[in-house]
Amino acid sequence: MPVINIDLGLGQANEEQKKQLIERFTRDAVEVTGIAVDKFVILINELPHENIGVGGKSLKTLKMGH
Amino acid sequence: MPVINIDLGLGQANEEQKKQLIERFTRDAVEVTGIAVDKFVILINELPHENIGVGGKSLKTLKMGH
Amino acid sequence: MPVINIDLGLGQANEEQKKQLIERFTRDAVEVTGIAVDKFVILINELPHENIGVGGKSLKTLKMGH
Amino acid sequence: MPVINIDLGLGQANEEQKKQLIERFTRDAVEVTGIAVDKFVILINELPHENIGVGGKSLKTLKMGH
Amino acid sequence: MPVINIDLGLGQANEEQKKQLIERFTRDAVEVTGIAVDKFVILINELPHENIGVGGKSLKTLKMGH
Amino acid sequence: MPVINIDLGLGQANEEQKKQLIERFTRDAVEVTGIAVDKFVILINELPHENIGVGGKSLKTLKMGH
Repeated sequence: MPVINIDLGLGQANEEQKKQLIERFTRDAVEVTGIAVDKFVILINELPHENIGVGGKSLKTLKMGH
Repeated sequence: MPVINIDLGLGQANEEQKKQLIERFTRDAVEVTGIAVDKFVILINELPHENIGVGGKSLKTLKMGH
Repeated sequence: MPVINIDLGLGQANEEQKKQLIERFTRDAVEVTGIAVDKFVILINELPHENIGVGGKSLKTLKMGH
Repeated sequence: MPVINIDLGLGQANEEQKKQLIERFTRDAVEVTGIAVDKFVILINELPHENIGVGGKSLKTLKMGH
Repeated sequence: MPVINIDLGLGQANEEQKKQLIERFTRDAVEVTGIAVDKFVILINELPHENIGVGGKSLKTLKMGH
Repeated sequence: MPVINIDLGLGQANEEQKKQLIERFTRDAVEVTGIAVDKFVILINELPHENIGVGGKSLKTLKMGH
């Protein structure tokens, strides 16, 4: 605790980028809150683009230009 | 914002049905709240049936009639 | 199961509107998926505007026109 | 309702262990709260170890001894 | 990690019952998975009954017998 | 989309600190993923310490030194 959940579309972050998100979010949260680094848990949930809706359309549809 | 998360079992909705859920939930939410359509994010999370429990049994077990 | 979570800002929906969201989301989901109505659980989580960020600013800041 | 979400790393629980988590969590929750067993929904979300951060490092990195 | 989220209605568990849920869920999860006790985080989210829908009706409506 | 949820204990971050978390998480995520800043939604959920369990004990109990 604290717990940080990140919901992304598949392919929006590769392994190296996920490593950076984990590092930088944790560092920021430690600096801002003063809570010890080992307390932080980060969970990255990746979803297919057909499973993500923005403004009533799926990300898959939006990416096909409709 | 607002964000709508839908947790489903794998196979409970195909791509077309997920498109309809995204469209209809967004339309309803816009009509009910008056918030602009482009503000809505919908995330559909699909889980294997062995990962879902109802009344103390997994959905997989329930579907096998136990 | 299925479970639908809705994250809203405080004041974005009054009790009557929350009732409508519950009714209409459940009706849509039943019609789209064919899953029985009594299986659906909806959870509405309301957050203070200072706890919501859009584009790097809090909803509270955005509403004050900054 | 109530809904219990469990976030685990892939491989931290096999099918039999997930069955036990569903059974034992539901039994405990019924005994503690008095709520009827059929009301409980449990969702187990399994994430790749590179998608999990603890103390600023991914579980994958930690397991490789860095 | 692992992280366990419990969504309850307000009043469905008092402080003592929440303590028991935390203790018993953690003990079960340790016994079932073999993961060390200090790794487990449990978050209990309590919602007003008008914010919970079951079968298309709010828990508040259901409790009033409608 | 993407959506970032942060679960904190009540009092672990005041309004100014929440502002900083929103700003810095968004800036980091933009720099790491290249996704446009206006796409990011951040939701901060604050829980009473009796609702948070770490290692089988509530945060409230731990803070009282037990």
